[in-house]
Amino acid sequence: MKKTTTFRQMLTSPWLEFIMEAHNGLSAKIVEEAGFKGIWGSGLSISAALGVRDSNEASWTQVLDVLDFMSDATSIPILLDGDTGYGNFNNVRRLVKKLEQRGVAAVCLEDKLFPKTNSLMDHKVQPLDDIDEFAGKIKAGQDSQTDPDFCIVARIEAFIAGWGLPEMLKRAEAYHKAGADALLIHSKLSTPQEILAFTKEWNNRCPLVIVPTMYYATPTEVFREAGISLVIWANHLLRSSIGAMQKTAAQIYKEETLLNVEKAVVGVKEIFRLQRAEELDRAEELYLPKK
Amino acid sequence: MKKTTTFRQMLTSPWLEFIMEAHNGLSAKIVEEAGFKGIWGSGLSISAALGVRDSNEASWTQVLDVLDFMSDATSIPILLDGDTGYGNFNNVRRLVKKLEQRGVAAVCLEDKLFPKTNSLMDHKVQPLDDIDEFAGKIKAGQDSQTDPDFCIVARIEAFIAGWGLPEMLKRAEAYHKAGADALLIHSKLSTPQEILAFTKEWNNRCPLVIVPTMYYATPTEVFREAGISLVIWANHLLRSSIGAMQKTAAQIYKEETLLNVEKAVVGVKEIFRLQRAEELDRAEELYLPKK
Amino acid sequence: MKKTTTFRQMLTSPWLEFIMEAHNGLSAKIVEEAGFKGIWGSGLSISAALGVRDSNEASWTQVLDVLDFMSDATSIPILLDGDTGYGNFNNVRRLVKKLEQRGVAAVCLEDKLFPKTNSLMDHKVQPLDDIDEFAGKIKAGQDSQTDPDFCIVARIEAFIAGWGLPEMLKRAEAYHKAGADALLIHSKLSTPQEILAFTKEWNNRCPLVIVPTMYYATPTEVFREAGISLVIWANHLLRSSIGAMQKTAAQIYKEETLLNVEKAVVGVKEIFRLQRAEELDRAEELYLPKK
Amino acid sequence: MKKTTTFRQMLTSPWLEFIMEAHNGLSAKIVEEAGFKGIWGSGLSISAALGVRDSNEASWTQVLDVLDFMSDATSIPILLDGDTGYGNFNNVRRLVKKLEQRGVAAVCLEDKLFPKTNSLMDHKVQPLDDIDEFAGKIKAGQDSQTDPDFCIVARIEAFIAGWGLPEMLKRAEAYHKAGADALLIHSKLSTPQEILAFTKEWNNRCPLVIVPTMYYATPTEVFREAGISLVIWANHLLRSSIGAMQKTAAQIYKEETLLNVEKAVVGVKEIFRLQRAEELDRAEELYLPKK
Repeated sequence: MKKTTTFRQMLTSPWLEFIMEAHNGLSAKIVEEAGFKGIWGSGLSISAALGVRDSNEASWTQVLDVLDFMSDATSIPILLDGDTGYGNFNNVRRLVKKLEQRGVAAVCLEDKLFPKTNSLMDHKVQPLDDIDEFAGKIKAGQDSQTDPDFCIVARIEAFIAGWGLPEMLKRAEAYHKAGADALLIHSKLSTPQEILAFTKEWNNRCPLVIVPTMYYATPTEVFREAGISLVIWANHLLRSSIGAMQKTAAQIYKEETLLNVEKAVVGVKEIFRLQRAEELDRAEELYLPKK
Repeated sequence: MKKTTTFRQMLTSPWLEFIMEAHNGLSAKIVEEAGFKGIWGSGLSISAALGVRDSNEASWTQVLDVLDFMSDATSIPILLDGDTGYGNFNNVRRLVKKLEQRGVAAVCLEDKLFPKTNSLMDHKVQPLDDIDEFAGKIKAGQDSQTDPDFCIVARIEAFIAGWGLPEMLKRAEAYHKAGADALLIHSKLSTPQEILAFTKEWNNRCPLVIVPTMYYATPTEVFREAGISLVIWANHLLRSSIGAMQKTAAQIYKEETLLNVEKAVVGVKEIFRLQRAEELDRAEELYLPKK
Repeated sequence: MKKTTTFRQMLTSPWLEFIMEAHNGLSAKIVEEAGFKGIWGSGLSISAALGVRDSNEASWTQVLDVLDFMSDATSIPILLDGDTGYGNFNNVRRLVKKLEQRGVAAVCLEDKLFPKTNSLMDHKVQPLDDIDEFAGKIKAGQDSQTDPDFCIVARIEAFIAGWGLPEMLKRAEAYHKAGADALLIHSKLSTPQEILAFTKEWNNRCPLVIVPTMYYATPTEVFREAGISLVIWANHLLRSSIGAMQKTAAQIYKEETLLNVEKAVVGVKEIFRLQRAEELDRAEELYLPKK
Repeated sequence: MKKTTTFRQMLTSPWLEFIMEAHNGLSAKIVEEAGFKGIWGSGLSISAALGVRDSNEASWTQVLDVLDFMSDATSIPILLDGDTGYGNFNNVRRLVKKLEQRGVAAVCLEDKLFPKTNSLMDHKVQPLDDIDEFAGKIKAGQDSQTDPDFCIVARIEAFIAGWGLPEMLKRAEAYHKAGADALLIHSKLSTPQEILAFTKEWNNRCPLVIVPTMYYATPTEVFREAGISLVIWANHLLRSSIGAMQKTAAQIYKEETLLNVEKAVVGVKEIFRLQRAEELDRAEELYLPKK
């Protein structure tokens, strides 16, 4: 099945589905091997891994290059966190075309302004895009698809911006009407209160996606009962890798030897396995002359 | 002090120095924060993080783009694992120029053939470059520098290829004469036997660099006594991150909740800190109009 | 019809077909507007336009980025001059995959060594690849296709290298057997003598492609009678642009005014037309809110 | 002399200076060979050459890659047409840093909104940036320089947007105060009327730059007397190349032979010369083993 078709089915199936964050080819492969059916190409994680801020410091083609590697390394669908679409409707058109070519299954666009500010930064103003302008982006994205199963998820930031439920619903209605395949309802509360208030009013009119980074303590059953279609575990591979690398770096720096680290980390052969070294061995048998 | 000057001093100082592997801007930043004086831009780690093999599947400019981010994220020197130089002497000339521009302090070139095979793959043939051809690469690289402190490290693969000490010494002599700022003596034995055989004969005629990935159990004091200048801890941040991400992915996949993972990983704020979010806050104060 | 299918039909049709060189999105568009059915993505022209030598100074992904723009700007098939495949069979596999994704219809690979030397440089040694090694590249490329109509053209350089007809035929046989969709017979004589010697012996066993840059005075009827399938006009747009730009630059430099140049060059509006400005105007009507 | 220093001197010298448009490494080289002291990296020409629109369809790093080739191919300063800075003040900071690294001498920023609209499109609304916001970009750019001779030119679009002289002067004052090294006064009238109205009021308080694409018939002496520092010939190499390529393509398409084209275009050897083939010959003598 095409990656796009798989992802569309995840959105429209009656079950709650889960996708896991990745930020490069390696972590994407790890997500697939863990059993997940899809990958979240997180803007925060990708920028952090590159070493820049989640403020569109990396250009959209630099992000695209990361996605190209992620897509090549895996066979499950990727939903790209496409920020604001990196400009206006016209930039969205190019983005959708390029994502399709590179085997990315879907993109999530958020109704904020370029360059973006990360939604979890409490102290920041989070200005929202004009509703009609953003609806135009969604329409333009839809019209640029050549694969009808490519999906566009509209991420509504009105809770994040402090505008409350009425604005959320107004925007949800507009983006749904503009053709969004799903809505991502974002909240940075530590409880699912905003999410549940929305799902109650929205009444299942289209697939909903959530990111429970801040309300992580909510039992998953709550999301299931609320009719959510897709949960994004948004940045936890990156966060686990940071802690591990900091600990390893500190230990090697202090001890000036690998002796105690060697047993605590995977072997070099595990890197080779993840790189699919054995496939190259077989290909060399096939394509290189015997010497 | 310029990054290049710092690195040159690390090579020529009477002390044993250490540099630590990184594979993107984030891990490079972690290396610097741990206290290390320099960074090893590992070909194996960079390719693995991208999701491809250590066989020049990523183009040299894709590697360069990774280095650009790593250099921007840090203030300590980076020694790039430049494989074979990605072609002939002329490709080396372009590489050196581009690395200097991007703030990379030094490059290590190995005397194998493009496209390369990872040296730790036991079952692979490891064909060596012609000595004069490789010496020409070193000379060409030296002549392309505009910063006299940029360093070229010549990595000799004769032990890896099974050619023994006489070939190592012959090549060491040729590359030293060609202008290499240091020699990297590589070995995949589990003991330092080959390294020590070389250092004894070489007798300190120029700085030596080693990569004790396979002979990790050797006490560091042994390297110090043998007169080694620089030890490269070559891939351990990547290896620690793989284990951590695999564990986290497996746990979230199984438990379908973040509850137990949340406490085990660093917070989102730690990502922001590593991205230097506060610097952007200060800059916004300075450059954005008050609203 | 898919671009790949169009190109395959051009190779296999009973008529002599022609494709014209382009080196960026603009010149590709001009080729299409002139009526040509296909585009030659010339390695010489692309490298020259970038400002580097035809010696693999640009990385293969930098060339790929040029092709991405060329393919986006046009609807006719592009045959990329893929040099030696930029490495071994494994690099060819990646190349084919990436070209397919970007809408490039076909690639031409030549049996020389990486980094390549331009075939028209008389004073240069032109070392040939091992026959089996190159046949392995062709097989690997064929096995990497997901679109069966993607074509691989094998370019034989034995005449260029001075090895004569027997070597040409031996190589032709091997590459044909390895699955090449067509053979490009290259010659730098000022007459078609080598080409005709080959076609006579080859006897139409598969489609043949030629590049009459040096034997340009040969009447096209001669190629038709010899059963050639495709003629590549290899670098003439670039060459005409160089002369025009040199003349214009010299005139403006000397006269210090645009007065006489204005009438001699196309208007700014012609640039806008080539960029399809009017499509954006219509899209703005559709997707931007009325103000 | 550094390229940046040369460019600064061109701005501050008492003479009227001229720079000529280029859009890739090849045209940049032609500009230098014609005798010009500097190069205009035109946004319109670069986007058109790539095959996209002058509406930030190419990402800023794709533009940067073009500049990298242009800078490598030449030894005279390049002033990049940096549009709006591709985002906010923070994007400008990254841009300046990257331009300095790649040997670009200066950048011109315009006070419009991202994504930009080409200024010569009569039928388009041309919304202006907030004055303080744009002044913040200039300040941020200045503070990001490591080379004090790198220059930032502030391009004022108030005439283009139809706001008239008072707004021009208000903005000129603000950008001058923010640290702009020069002001680019843009006009799309067919006479120099707006330009002269401005210069009269501005009274030489800082270097002024103009782009006489539309008022091309104005004698250059008029600019000299008005105290202009720098004239940009903005897109004429591209425009001359378009006409030449269209003519050549049409002729070859129609005649199906190179016979008549061959004499009208430069020879293949001229391409080799522009690529500096002979430098590589000499380098091969130096760095390749004798065979």
